[in-house]
Amino acid sequence: MNGAESLLRSLVSGGVEVCFTNPGTSEMHFVAALDRVPGMRAVLGLQENVVTGAADGYGRMADAPASTLLHLGPGLANGLANLHNARRAHTPIVNVVGDHAVDHAHLDAPLTSDVEAVAAPFSHWVRTSKTSRAVGRDAAEAVAAARAHPGRIASLILPADASWNEPGVPAKALPAPAPTSAPDETLEEIATRLRASERPALLLGGKALRARALELAAAIGRATGARVLCDTFYGRLERGGDRAVIERLPYFPEQAAEAIADVTDLVLVHTKAPVGFFAYPDKPSRLTAPATRIATLAELEEDAEGALEALADRLGVGPIEPGAFRSTDPLPALPDGELNPVSLAQAVAATMPENTIVVDEGATGGFFALPITASAPQHDWLALTGGAIGFGMPCAIGAAIACPDRPVLDLQADGSAMYTVQALWTQARESLDVTTLILANRSYAILRAELDRTGAAPSREAERLFDLTGPELDFVSLAKGMGVPAERVTDAGALGKALGRAYAEPGPKLIEAVL
Amino acid sequence: MNGAESLLRSLVSGGVEVCFTNPGTSEMHFVAALDRVPGMRAVLGLQENVVTGAADGYGRMADAPASTLLHLGPGLANGLANLHNARRAHTPIVNVVGDHAVDHAHLDAPLTSDVEAVAAPFSHWVRTSKTSRAVGRDAAEAVAAARAHPGRIASLILPADASWNEPGVPAKALPAPAPTSAPDETLEEIATRLRASERPALLLGGKALRARALELAAAIGRATGARVLCDTFYGRLERGGDRAVIERLPYFPEQAAEAIADVTDLVLVHTKAPVGFFAYPDKPSRLTAPATRIATLAELEEDAEGALEALADRLGVGPIEPGAFRSTDPLPALPDGELNPVSLAQAVAATMPENTIVVDEGATGGFFALPITASAPQHDWLALTGGAIGFGMPCAIGAAIACPDRPVLDLQADGSAMYTVQALWTQARESLDVTTLILANRSYAILRAELDRTGAAPSREAERLFDLTGPELDFVSLAKGMGVPAERVTDAGALGKALGRAYAEPGPKLIEAVL
Repeated sequence: MNGAESLLRSLVSGGVEVCFTNPGTSEMHFVAALDRVPGMRAVLGLQENVVTGAADGYGRMADAPASTLLHLGPGLANGLANLHNARRAHTPIVNVVGDHAVDHAHLDAPLTSDVEAVAAPFSHWVRTSKTSRAVGRDAAEAVAAARAHPGRIASLILPADASWNEPGVPAKALPAPAPTSAPDETLEEIATRLRASERPALLLGGKALRARALELAAAIGRATGARVLCDTFYGRLERGGDRAVIERLPYFPEQAAEAIADVTDLVLVHTKAPVGFFAYPDKPSRLTAPATRIATLAELEEDAEGALEALADRLGVGPIEPGAFRSTDPLPALPDGELNPVSLAQAVAATMPENTIVVDEGATGGFFALPITASAPQHDWLALTGGAIGFGMPCAIGAAIACPDRPVLDLQADGSAMYTVQALWTQARESLDVTTLILANRSYAILRAELDRTGAAPSREAERLFDLTGPELDFVSLAKGMGVPAERVTDAGALGKALGRAYAEPGPKLIEAVL
Repeated sequence: MNGAESLLRSLVSGGVEVCFTNPGTSEMHFVAALDRVPGMRAVLGLQENVVTGAADGYGRMADAPASTLLHLGPGLANGLANLHNARRAHTPIVNVVGDHAVDHAHLDAPLTSDVEAVAAPFSHWVRTSKTSRAVGRDAAEAVAAARAHPGRIASLILPADASWNEPGVPAKALPAPAPTSAPDETLEEIATRLRASERPALLLGGKALRARALELAAAIGRATGARVLCDTFYGRLERGGDRAVIERLPYFPEQAAEAIADVTDLVLVHTKAPVGFFAYPDKPSRLTAPATRIATLAELEEDAEGALEALADRLGVGPIEPGAFRSTDPLPALPDGELNPVSLAQAVAATMPENTIVVDEGATGGFFALPITASAPQHDWLALTGGAIGFGMPCAIGAAIACPDRPVLDLQADGSAMYTVQALWTQARESLDVTTLILANRSYAILRAELDRTGAAPSREAERLFDLTGPELDFVSLAKGMGVPAERVTDAGALGKALGRAYAEPGPKLIEAVL
């Protein structure tokens, strides 16, 4: 057995079942080993940011790492932006990167670069397997590192000779660091604060956004008068149906600051004290008021749900009746007439099937989608955690592969869509049940708002750089070019019907909604 | 004047006339300053590898740096692969990357990353301008660094507050390090070797591939019996018409090694002793025979043409008659019948207008394009220097902007095309005279050859990962989606006609040649 086969066997042994890839010459032995090792599904992406974004979507939904297989420094570089998003989402990923043979690297052949240095800024764990014998063990360690709670990016670099040489020694799965428990003193202190505080609030992120944790937080809120909020962006929020509704911290910093201005005690669960997405001249970066006291119930490495459970116990919160904190909004009716961000959100809410996975890269066009879908059937919401656009279409691939029985809806801003539009091809090849809803406002609309906020003067050149007309992007043709059936809608009624059709038929669909 | 305006003024003062960009919030003050500073053309790319690849194409043809403007670590990351190619092509680029305000960066907002660390592996020069006052001077130094012979990647990181704060202090252009001259002893030693050597050869790269240097090398070859070869991949080769024809070192290592196996003395001009693109089991990475003596006439920092001129003098090479070393091949006739890599190359050669800029990312489908066009009218050939695919379409943008009066032909493999297919939109928006010829063999065909060479067994999974059918990519629809007129051809006669039409009309065209 060569090193490549030992790598594959070690990954499978560690529960890694999918490899998203765009391989090259230095990865050929890994590719060849795929036939010999059962249990690994290889999925081709036509560019590496599709590959890493798919691994992100997979990990968010499977709570287990997929692997990637990337081609040297430039292949890795192409996938870094979505690794950045995955890192911010606490997604487990085993990122496998081929490199030149050890004796070849120092010759500075054209594709040579310092792969460890390329991986480091977006990885929690980086290692190069220098010999075939080391590969299996290193792979097992990479899997364990990726599985460390709540999920990490482990980058394993595989020189071609470590891959083709014998012997390879497959390794059994190693234990991953489990979440630790919040200490008793922390629980006691926070219980005391919540009881005594005038206007307390909980701010949730990470794994605290799963259904049970949300319900516990809502019950704690009811018992103590605490508001319950969540981060603006998060890896995965379980919502809809009977699940607890919570407030989302607004995106724009002055709105976020205002939303929590009078909070006397802010209790953090799997998140940090909120800061602005960007800095602006003469505006504070920290969003909490100076008088707000901040405490942390569960750090990222700790068990958020367990901490909330323990806190609820301590506060004497009794059993929670199903649906106690569900949305009381009526489900919107199918809209008619003008297509705009509100009617678009209504159409999405009115048609959403149970257990939909919503991937949200909607930007300004998707602004109302989250609030208006609160009363939709039970679903999951995956947000753009790292701000690196080009996340939605790849993430939808991974989510659909992790959950083949669930529909995936990608709310996709047009400017961001173009970053990784190649992803549509993989959706078609793998016959994934992904509906891509393009929010076509023909511009980088968010930048118009941001230009003003930064205090920079509006300008002709700025307007030209934010404008995506001349030529207009035609997503129906783009989808056709990659084998995805598509249609364009220009009013809200047609959108509702198109969504219904898309959910009813298997395989990917694209709907270009002209806003 | 704020820092951003001082940056723009310093760039313009340094002769930087084009900024390829996809800006975000942290770059808004740079964008706003574009209206106030004459002399800078801003060109939008829909993804950053389009932006950096365009800067590469521009720099190769203008022999002067364009700037980029990229959005934080992830925006930079998206553009690294084509920076890698540019670095290997010795292209001058001033890579400007926005970052968070200095006081915001430590708060670890979602888009935060270590931008210097992201830039470093693919840059020759990296600096962060920490204050508005420093920006102008840093920009002038970045331009000088980029202009250092033969061309370098200078990455200037611009925190948002250094951009929006006053005062900005624009700086005049600084002198760039000029090429040095090869020392007399080197010249004498190499002249002696060439006279005495049994089977000498010159291997040229970098700036030694410009018309005058090639002619001098060919004349030296005639005078001494030396063969004249060039690197397999290079930034820019001037050829066709009256220009000197030279041999190209083959791509596959055993062919390359065989081509130079009996060389007694190898003289390097702006290149290194050749090594394999990849390593393969039990094959040497160095391509020169152990008995071959190697000497360097001009290092990269030195003046290649000057060194060849001095060497020619020393060898008593007289005046060179125009066209003395031009191709003696007849110009191929317009082909008919089956479309294959040979007839495709014939159609390209038979229709090529004078002064065409050929961007070559043809891979296996373009294998015959270079030899068969040797007798075409005078043209330039830009090759994929770093092996990072997704180079062709962006490079064509930059070449067309640098040389608005010259036609650009992008020989574009289909698999590589999908890496940066977004580039077509910029070609349409800027009405560039680019003809994209898609070599559609519906596969990563090169990997089939490479799999075999690495000794890995053919496999079902490998075949699936190399295959680009199911669904087939439809480049005519893709081009239509981005506003580029397109047609599909399936025989050689139709290709010749389509190329003729594409050259005759202004603006971009795409031809999908089904191989």
